[in-house]
Amino acid sequence: MSELRQDPTTKSWVILAPERAKRPQPKHRVRPADELPGWDSSCPFCPGNEELTPPEVFRLPVSNQGAPWEVRVVPNRFAALTPGENGDIVEEARLFRKMDGIGAHEVIIETPLHNMPMALMSYEQVEKVLIAYQERYNALKKEKYLKFITIFKNHGWASGTSLVHPHSQIVATPIVAPSYHRQFDIAHEYYIDRGRCLYCDLLAGELDKGKRIVARTEQFIVFHPFASHAAYETWIMPREHCASFGIFPDTYMNQLAKALKNVLLCLYESLDNPAFNLMVDSTLTEDEEDPYYHWHIRIVPRLTTIAGFEMGSGIYINTSLPEDTAGHIRACFQKLVKDGKISLD
Amino acid sequence: MSELRQDPTTKSWVILAPERAKRPQPKHRVRPADELPGWDSSCPFCPGNEELTPPEVFRLPVSNQGAPWEVRVVPNRFAALTPGENGDIVEEARLFRKMDGIGAHEVIIETPLHNMPMALMSYEQVEKVLIAYQERYNALKKEKYLKFITIFKNHGWASGTSLVHPHSQIVATPIVAPSYHRQFDIAHEYYIDRGRCLYCDLLAGELDKGKRIVARTEQFIVFHPFASHAAYETWIMPREHCASFGIFPDTYMNQLAKALKNVLLCLYESLDNPAFNLMVDSTLTEDEEDPYYHWHIRIVPRLTTIAGFEMGSGIYINTSLPEDTAGHIRACFQKLVKDGKISLD
Repeated sequence: MSELRQDPTTKSWVILAPERAKRPQPKHRVRPADELPGWDSSCPFCPGNEELTPPEVFRLPVSNQGAPWEVRVVPNRFAALTPGENGDIVEEARLFRKMDGIGAHEVIIETPLHNMPMALMSYEQVEKVLIAYQERYNALKKEKYLKFITIFKNHGWASGTSLVHPHSQIVATPIVAPSYHRQFDIAHEYYIDRGRCLYCDLLAGELDKGKRIVARTEQFIVFHPFASHAAYETWIMPREHCASFGIFPDTYMNQLAKALKNVLLCLYESLDNPAFNLMVDSTLTEDEEDPYYHWHIRIVPRLTTIAGFEMGSGIYINTSLPEDTAGHIRACFQKLVKDGKISLD
Repeated sequence: MSELRQDPTTKSWVILAPERAKRPQPKHRVRPADELPGWDSSCPFCPGNEELTPPEVFRLPVSNQGAPWEVRVVPNRFAALTPGENGDIVEEARLFRKMDGIGAHEVIIETPLHNMPMALMSYEQVEKVLIAYQERYNALKKEKYLKFITIFKNHGWASGTSLVHPHSQIVATPIVAPSYHRQFDIAHEYYIDRGRCLYCDLLAGELDKGKRIVARTEQFIVFHPFASHAAYETWIMPREHCASFGIFPDTYMNQLAKALKNVLLCLYESLDNPAFNLMVDSTLTEDEEDPYYHWHIRIVPRLTTIAGFEMGSGIYINTSLPEDTAGHIRACFQKLVKDGKISLD
């Protein structure tokens, strides 16, 4: 029999139904790196094609304009939102509310190498990508009308990406989706009720159980959450309370890079380079010091497709138990350490 | 510049960004019917293979057990939820709440013909499928512990289906997702505030604007909603207030079949047989007579992929304006009527 579990951060329920893993299902494997060229003349993110993107808003190395770049950030050529004057909500007619699509939508080009997925990057290169994430987060939050900033990465066609070259995106919106407001409300209520951060308690609960923990570092816990929405869903959460990625101490960025690269390599090896989405969840830009939210990275492999049931009910079906998948990834971790492919600290 | 619009039924926002339609994006076309066989020996839903599915719970024609079937309903072989004793929520540890996966998960095999998508079915056959939907909805709602019933259909691989043979599914759950609770809360609040059904008012608003209306019949309005989450998202809504598909008068089922088949054929013709999800949204099973919710059918073509931004922010990006897509489908409607392929009444 399957099991229903409640995600304590959203109060949504997921169905854990390992039996369903037996049904026929296409696998969303991404073309492996070694089948791709290191440079593609038609790729707008490859070196030499910089004029195919809008002008840079950030780059690494910062001070070295003439030198080859290591990470570039540019506005998205097909931006969903564009910078502008802070507009107001207009009521076109009763029930039909709208506003101008102001905001920001940028692309973080993670590497000059066309065929270098994050899973295979050096720790140093992943750290540079994370530094670019934080730089742009903090630059965008200065615009007071931008209430919420989403950093995300789509890897592989099944994740929604349209370009192969490794890249992430950052979108800043003048509104917050009700689904996120709900998470903040739940965390806030918990804080009022108990005087503690829900996520800190969740982390303590996961550490206490232990069986869903994938890795522990001095500053981070990597785990497959109790109510995982998808198979191999992975959270990377700082041990110490911090509501926003924007104010997370950059001295720990090398540790985060290590944890992130390690877990991505485990997924790459264990699931044969799966499509995935990666999201950096933070609190509202106005509320970065809040005591109730707790930033974290969520990695969701796209092994199955979001279908009519999920869209119709809001309930997700996961065909794996996080206890099992965490064990699987833990074993992969240990093997990669033994083989000298990753290091733990 | 793009536009943000608020869905009045969920208060979520969507970004309408037609500019983004220019970016490269794979198209999720489904293999056309005429490339498929009418019967597939390995298909568990094809006639002659009935023993490959669990025993029937409903069939049409009802009274004709020996005769060939026209529609069959069977429990899903890989059921996400299974019937059982009504369990309670158990707290495995603080924050870790769970319950047994009780409920129902059935498959509606829509036709004996392997290669007959709903878009190409006769009106009579679509009506039979809808009758089966309602029969099973009403049979399942008798179990008092089943709070919410989702009827849905996944067409094409990109919609999440694993089998080609035309089928729908019905899932009854002992819980209601918070996202749905939120919709009921919003509709309920609106009712308390104004004494009217939000959806009735929304329908009046759409009829008043007119430009997003695709078709009107005596009992139904077909339209592309103001804040469509996806390109060509289509709602079929009864003109008269009714909270649940379960109590919708079956005398109108032939009209619904006509509206549904017509719009599916338009999508089939206009978008070259796109993958789509279809959902029948109803109120809670305990609340079918309520004055604030309003059942409707939602059809969401899967032309793009739900990606990291949607998963990270809860905000959807739609690269088409519903005014434009409604105009496109309206023109297709008129052409199909002129060609004698569909009839309006």
